[in-house]
Amino acid sequence: MQTEPRPRTRRTRLTPEREAELYDAVLDLLRELGYDALTMDAIAARTRSSKATLYRQWNSKPELVARALRHNQPVSPADLDTGSLRGDVQILLNSSDDAQMEKDTALLRGLAHAVYQNEDLHTALRELMIEPEIAEINAMLQRAVDRGEIAADLPALEWIPQLLIGAFISRELIWDRPADKEYLTRFVHAVIFPVLGV
Amino acid sequence: MQTEPRPRTRRTRLTPEREAELYDAVLDLLRELGYDALTMDAIAARTRSSKATLYRQWNSKPELVARALRHNQPVSPADLDTGSLRGDVQILLNSSDDAQMEKDTALLRGLAHAVYQNEDLHTALRELMIEPEIAEINAMLQRAVDRGEIAADLPALEWIPQLLIGAFISRELIWDRPADKEYLTRFVHAVIFPVLGV
Repeated sequence: MQTEPRPRTRRTRLTPEREAELYDAVLDLLRELGYDALTMDAIAARTRSSKATLYRQWNSKPELVARALRHNQPVSPADLDTGSLRGDVQILLNSSDDAQMEKDTALLRGLAHAVYQNEDLHTALRELMIEPEIAEINAMLQRAVDRGEIAADLPALEWIPQLLIGAFISRELIWDRPADKEYLTRFVHAVIFPVLGV
Repeated sequence: MQTEPRPRTRRTRLTPEREAELYDAVLDLLRELGYDALTMDAIAARTRSSKATLYRQWNSKPELVARALRHNQPVSPADLDTGSLRGDVQILLNSSDDAQMEKDTALLRGLAHAVYQNEDLHTALRELMIEPEIAEINAMLQRAVDRGEIAADLPALEWIPQLLIGAFISRELIWDRPADKEYLTRFVHAVIFPVLGV
């Protein structure tokens, strides 16, 4: 299933504000129409931009959708660096309110169906959303190792990204309810901190 | 999403051998045809039974599929009781070989699509496959508590079923590869045993 990484697009033409506006519009349309019915034409119309601009910036619909979802995630790597692992994790937990989390879960649940049918969407989500998220969690852990908070050879280390991402997915998948802050906080205190020994 | 538990069917008419044969045929057909194209007619033809018998035993296609999947899981609760938690978990890990696990993952991946479209399949899998699996894991943990191996009030306890089920799902979902025995063994030693303190 591995594919060659695609060349990155240049993003010199849009201001960050305009980019955020476009991503918001994409997510709104995704909620309204679903992935299959979402077209670059509809995005161009809603955002009053040309399709040429959209394709120049994002190459394809799967890439645009994956970048919009990634942009929607509320924590930027710089905000995450509080000087302690517990502090960093607390920022992660506080970064989203329950209403937002429920909205996001509904969006991802809607997409799950499309992911099974669109290999290119699957690849874009992996490369542009999941892998950067894993890299961020690993960077957070590396800072804790560098500060001496956790041992570099702790066997649990390599499993933390999967445990954190899995906590999000599992409640929906196993218990049929979206994850919320209370649930994730209990998980972090019962599993993540003990397994890291912090 | 919770629904009333449906009345259990009586199963006095089939021998365990015949029941196993029927379940195997259902899984074979599921692999060949997919869930949507699988019909009670096709199952009746393949297994040389009458549709009336199938409906009397299983009520519906979702129930038959869920029970077939559950039957396919190789560990019975009695086998699991070895007298120690580490022993029980080892039995779980040894219960399936990698080829079987890959086959099962492919089967479940194929079903994921159908689950999103069929609420009754979703309910049947939850009631007849996931909930009994969680109950079995909890019974295994309760035995360990009763033997004094782990504390009854350990906060991680309630998360173990989700962690074990999640380990299976996550490798496929996040890393695009089916779980195998080496992977699950590493997970259990790096996460499950440390978080339980055994």
